[in-house]
Amino acid sequence: MPFVRIDWFPGRTLEQKRELVATLTPQIARIADCKPETIQFIFTDVTREDWGRNGKLFCDFYEYENDPK
Amino acid sequence: MPFVRIDWFPGRTLEQKRELVATLTPQIARIADCKPETIQFIFTDVTREDWGRNGKLFCDFYEYENDPK
Amino acid sequence: MPFVRIDWFPGRTLEQKRELVATLTPQIARIADCKPETIQFIFTDVTREDWGRNGKLFCDFYEYENDPK
Amino acid sequence: MPFVRIDWFPGRTLEQKRELVATLTPQIARIADCKPETIQFIFTDVTREDWGRNGKLFCDFYEYENDPK
Amino acid sequence: MPFVRIDWFPGRTLEQKRELVATLTPQIARIADCKPETIQFIFTDVTREDWGRNGKLFCDFYEYENDPK
Amino acid sequence: MPFVRIDWFPGRTLEQKRELVATLTPQIARIADCKPETIQFIFTDVTREDWGRNGKLFCDFYEYENDPK
Repeated sequence: MPFVRIDWFPGRTLEQKRELVATLTPQIARIADCKPETIQFIFTDVTREDWGRNGKLFCDFYEYENDPK
Repeated sequence: MPFVRIDWFPGRTLEQKRELVATLTPQIARIADCKPETIQFIFTDVTREDWGRNGKLFCDFYEYENDPK
Repeated sequence: MPFVRIDWFPGRTLEQKRELVATLTPQIARIADCKPETIQFIFTDVTREDWGRNGKLFCDFYEYENDPK
Repeated sequence: MPFVRIDWFPGRTLEQKRELVATLTPQIARIADCKPETIQFIFTDVTREDWGRNGKLFCDFYEYENDPK
Repeated sequence: MPFVRIDWFPGRTLEQKRELVATLTPQIARIADCKPETIQFIFTDVTREDWGRNGKLFCDFYEYENDPK
Repeated sequence: MPFVRIDWFPGRTLEQKRELVATLTPQIARIADCKPETIQFIFTDVTREDWGRNGKLFCDFYEYENDPK
């Protein structure tokens, strides 16, 4: 019954989400030894204005170029 | 102190949310033996593009008619 | 596809959880207009040492008798 | 590794979020005895139509003036 | 910055969690186009007494043998 | 109505949690401009066997000494 929640920065396409669910589900089923139909995913976008680390919001944190997604 | 979070597909009306909170609160209070004023609800919409099961996103999964809400 | 999460103080019995799931599922299905088999519940115990309000932990907050559950 | 999630009513400004992350991070680092760079924050807006207590939604609950934020 | 949370039934070994994190991280990094070091995982066990579907708790739901994990 | 959830490694004492709630609540009330009695906290312990980053579980990640909490 794995229920997978992924919080991330906005910007991933429908195709990326499709590929993630299609790719990760069989891996989780194999490794966690469960049936693919019991595995669910929820993706949640969190903007850089709403996510912070080390005392700063990511919208400020990444004023320079190496902006991890 | 039950804190209830409900994730679901978008589309429920304000009236449906009102009825749910009004209907479920006394039931939870009775069964869980607690005071209604300590029971909170948060509803979160998750689109079918952001929710998947069995290796597919629900926006793809339910291209046919039996589309559970 | 309602996914229901309930955080509450520890102490509810298996019977209470059975009754809650059996009672709330048809209500949610009726009001939210969805199929019962798509409704899931997760219960999570949170002790009064790990839950606080108004600047105090509930284990301190309720040193007197009117201890809501 | 504290990961802090704050759900609240919409309406806080970018400045308020900046000040919260900047103010709370060193406090958490000091009290929880961990490194600031390991502390993350996620803010999530929940409207009064999606948040309820004591059998009512907050959008109804606060038709009068004392509207806590 | 993908933050991955997996709720599942108890019983997975440390080895299974190691393999999952080691296997899924590079896949997520590739597909979601982000750096592996920004990807975090949290696993949470939820017992069958605390997880229900279709009006029943899984501890009751699976009295017979085909017990998905 | 800020609802604050903090996931962290196990090991914080009751005193640390008391101090955190007592210290952060007035700060959040001031900055977020809300009433202290509307602010709740939930602390959740997540072991290093259940939390990973960059493809490794923290129980492995920190075999050496600089073990952030």
